[in-house]
Amino acid sequence: MLLEKIEQVNDIKKIDKKDWNALAEEIRQFLIEKISVTGGHLGANLGTVELTMALHLALDLPEDKIIWDVGHQSYTHKLLTGRREGFDTLRQFHGMSGFPKRKESICDTFDTGHSSTSISAGLGLVKARDLLGEKRTIVSVIGDGSLTGGMAYEALNNAAKLETNYIIILNDNNMSISENVGGVSKYLNNIRTATGYLDLKEGIYNMLKGAPGGDSMVSTIRRTKSSFKQLVIPGMFFEDMGITYLGPVDGHDIQRLVRVIRDARRVRGAVLIHVMTQKGKGYGPAERHPARFHGAEPFDIATGIPSHPKTVPNYTDVFSTVMCKLGARDEKIVAITAAMADGTGLKRFHNMYPERFFDVGIAEQHAVTFAAGLAVGGLKPIVAIYSSFLQRAYDQILHDVCIQNLPVVFAVDRAGLVGSDGETHQGIFDLSYLSGIPNMHVCAPKNKWELSDMMKFAVALGAPIAVRYPRGEAYAGLREFREPIELGKAEWICREDEIALFAVGSMVRIAEEVRDRLHELGHHASLINARFVKPFDAQAVLEACGSHEMIVTMEENVSCGGYGEKVLDCMEQNGKKNQFLNISIPDRFVEHGSVSRLLAELGMDADSITARILERRGEG
Amino acid sequence: MLLEKIEQVNDIKKIDKKDWNALAEEIRQFLIEKISVTGGHLGANLGTVELTMALHLALDLPEDKIIWDVGHQSYTHKLLTGRREGFDTLRQFHGMSGFPKRKESICDTFDTGHSSTSISAGLGLVKARDLLGEKRTIVSVIGDGSLTGGMAYEALNNAAKLETNYIIILNDNNMSISENVGGVSKYLNNIRTATGYLDLKEGIYNMLKGAPGGDSMVSTIRRTKSSFKQLVIPGMFFEDMGITYLGPVDGHDIQRLVRVIRDARRVRGAVLIHVMTQKGKGYGPAERHPARFHGAEPFDIATGIPSHPKTVPNYTDVFSTVMCKLGARDEKIVAITAAMADGTGLKRFHNMYPERFFDVGIAEQHAVTFAAGLAVGGLKPIVAIYSSFLQRAYDQILHDVCIQNLPVVFAVDRAGLVGSDGETHQGIFDLSYLSGIPNMHVCAPKNKWELSDMMKFAVALGAPIAVRYPRGEAYAGLREFREPIELGKAEWICREDEIALFAVGSMVRIAEEVRDRLHELGHHASLINARFVKPFDAQAVLEACGSHEMIVTMEENVSCGGYGEKVLDCMEQNGKKNQFLNISIPDRFVEHGSVSRLLAELGMDADSITARILERRGEG
Repeated sequence: MLLEKIEQVNDIKKIDKKDWNALAEEIRQFLIEKISVTGGHLGANLGTVELTMALHLALDLPEDKIIWDVGHQSYTHKLLTGRREGFDTLRQFHGMSGFPKRKESICDTFDTGHSSTSISAGLGLVKARDLLGEKRTIVSVIGDGSLTGGMAYEALNNAAKLETNYIIILNDNNMSISENVGGVSKYLNNIRTATGYLDLKEGIYNMLKGAPGGDSMVSTIRRTKSSFKQLVIPGMFFEDMGITYLGPVDGHDIQRLVRVIRDARRVRGAVLIHVMTQKGKGYGPAERHPARFHGAEPFDIATGIPSHPKTVPNYTDVFSTVMCKLGARDEKIVAITAAMADGTGLKRFHNMYPERFFDVGIAEQHAVTFAAGLAVGGLKPIVAIYSSFLQRAYDQILHDVCIQNLPVVFAVDRAGLVGSDGETHQGIFDLSYLSGIPNMHVCAPKNKWELSDMMKFAVALGAPIAVRYPRGEAYAGLREFREPIELGKAEWICREDEIALFAVGSMVRIAEEVRDRLHELGHHASLINARFVKPFDAQAVLEACGSHEMIVTMEENVSCGGYGEKVLDCMEQNGKKNQFLNISIPDRFVEHGSVSRLLAELGMDADSITARILERRGEG
Repeated sequence: MLLEKIEQVNDIKKIDKKDWNALAEEIRQFLIEKISVTGGHLGANLGTVELTMALHLALDLPEDKIIWDVGHQSYTHKLLTGRREGFDTLRQFHGMSGFPKRKESICDTFDTGHSSTSISAGLGLVKARDLLGEKRTIVSVIGDGSLTGGMAYEALNNAAKLETNYIIILNDNNMSISENVGGVSKYLNNIRTATGYLDLKEGIYNMLKGAPGGDSMVSTIRRTKSSFKQLVIPGMFFEDMGITYLGPVDGHDIQRLVRVIRDARRVRGAVLIHVMTQKGKGYGPAERHPARFHGAEPFDIATGIPSHPKTVPNYTDVFSTVMCKLGARDEKIVAITAAMADGTGLKRFHNMYPERFFDVGIAEQHAVTFAAGLAVGGLKPIVAIYSSFLQRAYDQILHDVCIQNLPVVFAVDRAGLVGSDGETHQGIFDLSYLSGIPNMHVCAPKNKWELSDMMKFAVALGAPIAVRYPRGEAYAGLREFREPIELGKAEWICREDEIALFAVGSMVRIAEEVRDRLHELGHHASLINARFVKPFDAQAVLEACGSHEMIVTMEENVSCGGYGEKVLDCMEQNGKKNQFLNISIPDRFVEHGSVSRLLAELGMDADSITARILERRGEG
């Protein structure tokens, strides 16, 4: 086994060149085996095995720095930097992260998770290097999908000014999670199909360089927007901006990649290497179903079929179904996603109403303002974006949707704890950042039926509204509680006295358990499904204050700006002095791990909450 | 006077073509006269007089739709749509807004204020038009500065897919507020200098179209990436993305502009008209000092000198000075701005330490992640961005700076009410969206000396921290209170009993007045300068609770997630049942007007606060 020789960073350099391809094959098999057990980002990692090897061969880590955009493609990098054992605990609580983490290794330069940040971060490192008089190579590796995100372009625009070396590797698999969209994709496609350009260009340059006075001719060509250059050089736009373009290069040809990376280190200024890779490379099921193997659950290697097939629909499925119904009922309903047609469940809507479906690419800012435009134009847009990615569009929600009070519905999936993706993906801020915006409405369903009802309510509201629901299994309990949704009204699930449990969305299920435990211990607890965080049901709170000794709020969100603070504020303004307990995410980032484990760690599972209530009651 | 004939939209069409230039001249004089009295965005508006006239001549408003990016260049549009009288109350409370407002006119399609939103909104309107089977021309007018913002690029990427008409006008004055930066600017410059291209291209196309089979040749040329096209057509990148490029066109030639806009309406798909304009055109001082006349205070027309010269330094000046001192003291200090070197006061730092200053263009997202990269690289970055624009970088602050707990200092200027720019520019959310992020620290100075001290403290902290300070005059009172800044510690200005006034930043000055009034009425109030909103001084609050009957918090920020809610939370958790009053911005957007007028309207001036306190005390 070649892989066993790789114990730490740079061990790969001891591997004989003739064995490189064999090592790549071993890595691939290793990744497939491990991810088939733990789950993880398979496709992206299989596509970048050779590219990562080439980077480690051509660079000197940890002196040189690699920044992985998004970071889900960093598994081979982890493997080559002494973290082979980590794959047994991949994405598990206290185990190895599925993303680069500076605290995990000195070879991890910059923590990533969201898309399109790597060039900005890379430029920062370049400027720091130059100002501190250091020598090191800095490389950002960015996918063509991430290149649809606006901040990547903001960064490219700034990279163009550089006068010292900086390498951008465009990992072009013609995919984000689903297929790519838009003009840039088309532009890259044009380049891709222009085979042989690299050789041609190199040939001409080499020829010129060899000739007397050739060097100055090369620089003249580079400097001027000459027709000659336009004829023979792809990547013109990059070149015109001032970024040297090299490529396209076969991303599975290690020797070639090593050579190009070494060449790129000699370029003055920013240089972009356009590398062609195949997502899921070397594993049939992943090559054929790239979206399914983007973030894979554990699967059977022989067939590619999930080891634990889903038996219960998740909230995304419920959303998917209600969207199709809504689409049938009202032709003005349109759906927008940011490169997440599969993840958000909008694929079915897309199939049924292709004209009314818009995948804008990884471009959350555009998605939201585009929806604002659709609303001004007379349509009823529903924007489906994960909670943590919607953070990118905070200003657009505020500035473009809410100031104009436009009827845009936000379907905020993956809200609350998301589990194995960890810190960067936890959707634990949305109740705060959304409810702080004037004109915005915010609600969360307790179960699958309520998600369906809330979506219908949201579309009919005619004002900005967010419906937030968690990742994973849709709760099917409490089916008998299905009072019509009314703006700003909570739902009483059971009325007792002593303790009133006000729970938001996913916490209703846990509140039920808490109520049962309290009951066993001789306490009487009412359970109220908050339904709305904004406007929240002040009347229900005051009513509860009148008949209960203690008010407890529960939400899968940070406390600052959340539901609990609103309830407390209401109590104070109305002179209610009941005992109060705010169950919410404490003020810290939450690492990866199963949601149930994380809830327990945060003191938010039924056991912990029961104990916290009793403690506050003076019985702890 | 030709201008007097313009009473409502489309009246311009009654003006004889030979009088167009005379009308343009009248409009220009009108704008100069009015803005010299009220203040306003002069430069941008003088640059777009002819362009706006041409749009009104070539289009049919309000059926056709114009979206003004940023919107500060919409004055001529307002003038041509029956709002001449409004210029007497421009940017004043209950007067005409300086930005497009749908509630002001049916001719205002989409409210703007922040940069780079117009193409996203325009695409939404286009899709709505097509789905609803309407016919109308939709035009987005975007400056080359706004084109450095990532979301404009996200939108362009999506515009490329269009199969129906949509016109983007690139208003290219080679400026954002200051000079433009980066690769795109360079790219546009290349085009700009390539004079004669438009004629050449038109000539060739016309020749081909006239020939037998010429039409299909034209479409073949358009379809294929032919070398021919590369030779003769500028704007290649736009064309390669799938956007038809027309230009460059002289932006002060009305007839020419009308013709090109009419031509553009016939294009299938997205078409970009590259219009060359001069900022400040026709007014010498504005042509020579574009940054100063971007957002001008009232000025003397003959000289261009401000009518009410600044006598007292504002907070920006104080920041400017302390940055130069910090820069001298520590070579690792670097400064970043997003196209606001003048506005943020970093120009002096730039002059003194050009190598350590970075203007990244209108690109707040990039600015923040770039700073994160600089911090990882070993430098001490200070990012100076206005409060409302920093909203654009919410995710980057959270995801790139705070998760990694990096020592990035945010100098948040224009925090709190900003006055005449209105809803889109009020900086009333930052205490909430910043303090909700784990690892972030947030503080606000009471006066000019404290801003200076806090900046020094912030740089030394070695963790993410925001220092937020308001627009306008720096408070020079309370000079004798200058205890060293200590993390999370408030400052007692005066100790009494009965009522404790906890004020954040700008509200300390108002709290002083409140204390005086209360004193006159026989009440005893302590005054505490909060200094830190996060971590806030819980000990000071508890101490106050022990010796006062009532706790009052004051902040120029929305209540949700703000300082007051934190204090209340702390009181509740510690079982303190004192009277409590939270003085903060209510849950609504705040229009334009002077800051003092707005504070009174919001019940946040000294009179109102005193009355509210007395009311709560049962004496109202």
